[in-house]
Amino acid sequence: MKILVLNAGSSSLKYSLFDMAERTALLSGLIERIGEAESSHRYRLGASAAQQQALTCRDHGQALQTLFSLLRATLPSGLSELAAVGHRVVHGGEFFHEPALIDRRVIAHIEAAIPLAPLHNPANLSGIEQALHLLAEVPHVAVFDTAFHQTLPDYAFRYPLPSQLYSEHGVRRYGFHGTSHAYVAKRAADYLGKPLAATNLITLHLGNGASVAAIAGGISIDTSMGMTPLEGLMMGSRCGDIDPAIAFYLARTLGMELDAIDKLYNKASGCLGVCGENDMRAIHAKAESGDDSAKLALAMYAYRIKKYIGAYYAVLGRVDALVFTGGIGENDAWLRQTCCEGLTAFGIAVDPAANAAPAKPAAAISPAASPVAVLVVNTDEELEIALQTAECLVKRSN
Amino acid sequence: MKILVLNAGSSSLKYSLFDMAERTALLSGLIERIGEAESSHRYRLGASAAQQQALTCRDHGQALQTLFSLLRATLPSGLSELAAVGHRVVHGGEFFHEPALIDRRVIAHIEAAIPLAPLHNPANLSGIEQALHLLAEVPHVAVFDTAFHQTLPDYAFRYPLPSQLYSEHGVRRYGFHGTSHAYVAKRAADYLGKPLAATNLITLHLGNGASVAAIAGGISIDTSMGMTPLEGLMMGSRCGDIDPAIAFYLARTLGMELDAIDKLYNKASGCLGVCGENDMRAIHAKAESGDDSAKLALAMYAYRIKKYIGAYYAVLGRVDALVFTGGIGENDAWLRQTCCEGLTAFGIAVDPAANAAPAKPAAAISPAASPVAVLVVNTDEELEIALQTAECLVKRSN
Repeated sequence: MKILVLNAGSSSLKYSLFDMAERTALLSGLIERIGEAESSHRYRLGASAAQQQALTCRDHGQALQTLFSLLRATLPSGLSELAAVGHRVVHGGEFFHEPALIDRRVIAHIEAAIPLAPLHNPANLSGIEQALHLLAEVPHVAVFDTAFHQTLPDYAFRYPLPSQLYSEHGVRRYGFHGTSHAYVAKRAADYLGKPLAATNLITLHLGNGASVAAIAGGISIDTSMGMTPLEGLMMGSRCGDIDPAIAFYLARTLGMELDAIDKLYNKASGCLGVCGENDMRAIHAKAESGDDSAKLALAMYAYRIKKYIGAYYAVLGRVDALVFTGGIGENDAWLRQTCCEGLTAFGIAVDPAANAAPAKPAAAISPAASPVAVLVVNTDEELEIALQTAECLVKRSN
Repeated sequence: MKILVLNAGSSSLKYSLFDMAERTALLSGLIERIGEAESSHRYRLGASAAQQQALTCRDHGQALQTLFSLLRATLPSGLSELAAVGHRVVHGGEFFHEPALIDRRVIAHIEAAIPLAPLHNPANLSGIEQALHLLAEVPHVAVFDTAFHQTLPDYAFRYPLPSQLYSEHGVRRYGFHGTSHAYVAKRAADYLGKPLAATNLITLHLGNGASVAAIAGGISIDTSMGMTPLEGLMMGSRCGDIDPAIAFYLARTLGMELDAIDKLYNKASGCLGVCGENDMRAIHAKAESGDDSAKLALAMYAYRIKKYIGAYYAVLGRVDALVFTGGIGENDAWLRQTCCEGLTAFGIAVDPAANAAPAKPAAAISPAASPVAVLVVNTDEELEIALQTAECLVKRSN
């Protein structure tokens, strides 16, 4: 079975074609700068070298046609080999607890969630509409970043705000990165050789965006991102948790408009705000050259993760493993070590040798006798979307 | 030695007269509705019954004159018996790390912190100015709510925001309730029979406002309130930690002005927002009568405390005691029990019998063999201000 995974951003289209028997990507690529005078297309066929192509894509429709030409040239029987298309959708609101076979009703519910994700859902929808138009004969499935966290109990997802803001306007914690947290939770349980339903995990997805989840027996019971992806951990350019009254101070004392504060919190804060860099490798280089602001950014980044580890340990009561994933979680040995320092009372420790170069796709970096395993697990959100898409097809045919 | 403690609010004056040898309040009272047509004065002489008096106080000056008449009638040798006046000041910015003998320079620094506490510092200053005018011959000392937390390391007090907001505008975590956290930390160490410098504590001040502090060897190393008292725990009518992007949603989707959002977060949120009540006894009564919103408010309130216990345990690495104080912390056995449930992995447990009615002023409510003591300690912010005022006098005379 072959499944195509699509992730349509506002000016980009990311895709992967999976052979589900092998769980391998036959083709993956990214078309960027859609709508601009010159777009770019990078892709990789199986394990071959990446290729680059200049082209012009007016919209997602043209980007998809470029992709479909490539698929026709790649697949012996052409597009008819596709069993389904899985679409990444950022926000499913409270309606979607699991992947959904796309029809007009599902589209209407994704549209209804636009106020909750004004930047992402319209782009995701544009990709869906164009793909449905061009590939009407194949089932399309929507897989939501928020769905995995729909199991949060009310005392964890509700904010201490007037209850009408929840009941009438959907103001609550939704959480994001759900496909990544779900994927690495399964891989971690496999690695530990325990059933997922009996495994308690704290999963740390640390990339340019970053979030933590408390997962009890495979069920997400809390997560750090909130109504939007701004809340929680310190990120590349997003502030994460701050005093909500700071916005009032910025408006009154500095005369900032709300849109400027929004931009400040999302684009000019986090690591970038503290030390002028948002790439973790650049921050390490700057810190090693003696820059105090880069050292501070690293210390804050690790400290805020450590507080969430403690908080979610308290929530879970018992933890089998702490799981690092995402570009930073998988590659930053210093960070993994620093987040776990001083946590021996929790049974958490890191073995420096194991931490230096953990084996892919999953490895323990804790000493063998540690009560809590510390794991590094490579995430694969595209594969997880393909797996969930396949599962949705099976459920539908049952 | 006798010390008068003054806490001037925008339309109130709270005071206590202490005999420092006995550490007892000889007189304490509250003048309210200052500036209104009819003010009220409630006071208590030693252990006698409270008395109530109707009067008119135009300003803090008149309120102080009322108090001084009472003092003259109470103290055998009149106001000359006062060794000092200790003034509570909410915000000391980054300038004040300890109590300060008040002079023009100190007043200028309290004025400079007004943008950080626009409601509180002007009222505190008005009380100071009037008291200096009426009682020039006695030393006056300012004791700051923020000073105890000036020991926070930079990675704990800095926000992941552009660094100029800190360096040029003082945007950082200050923390509040410092006198209470400092007082109960000392009482807890006394109770445990350990030197404060060797004792690690998590102190929970739970009143209408609420905050947690992580205290390592008597030094505050983190606290939940931030640049303002809005951040952190869920409170009576304040939201505490929420996604900072919710403000943008409220403004764009509901058309709310920033001032209205500020009021909503500070006055209509927390327990009040979730269940319509902000008094913990009323919330319990409502929950017992079967009201789901009151049950949710209680569950959220306890859950958010539990997350901070975990976070600060991680920060401290080792914890000797968890300390409950403040009106709710000292009186709500259900809450203490619920916050500590499922924390046996941390060595934290509550003994139901001990928890039901802990002895005053300090008692353990954990089983005798518990690795972490859980204590209930009665706070006394006025006494702590008096103690810090006395200490300031001693330092000055050395």
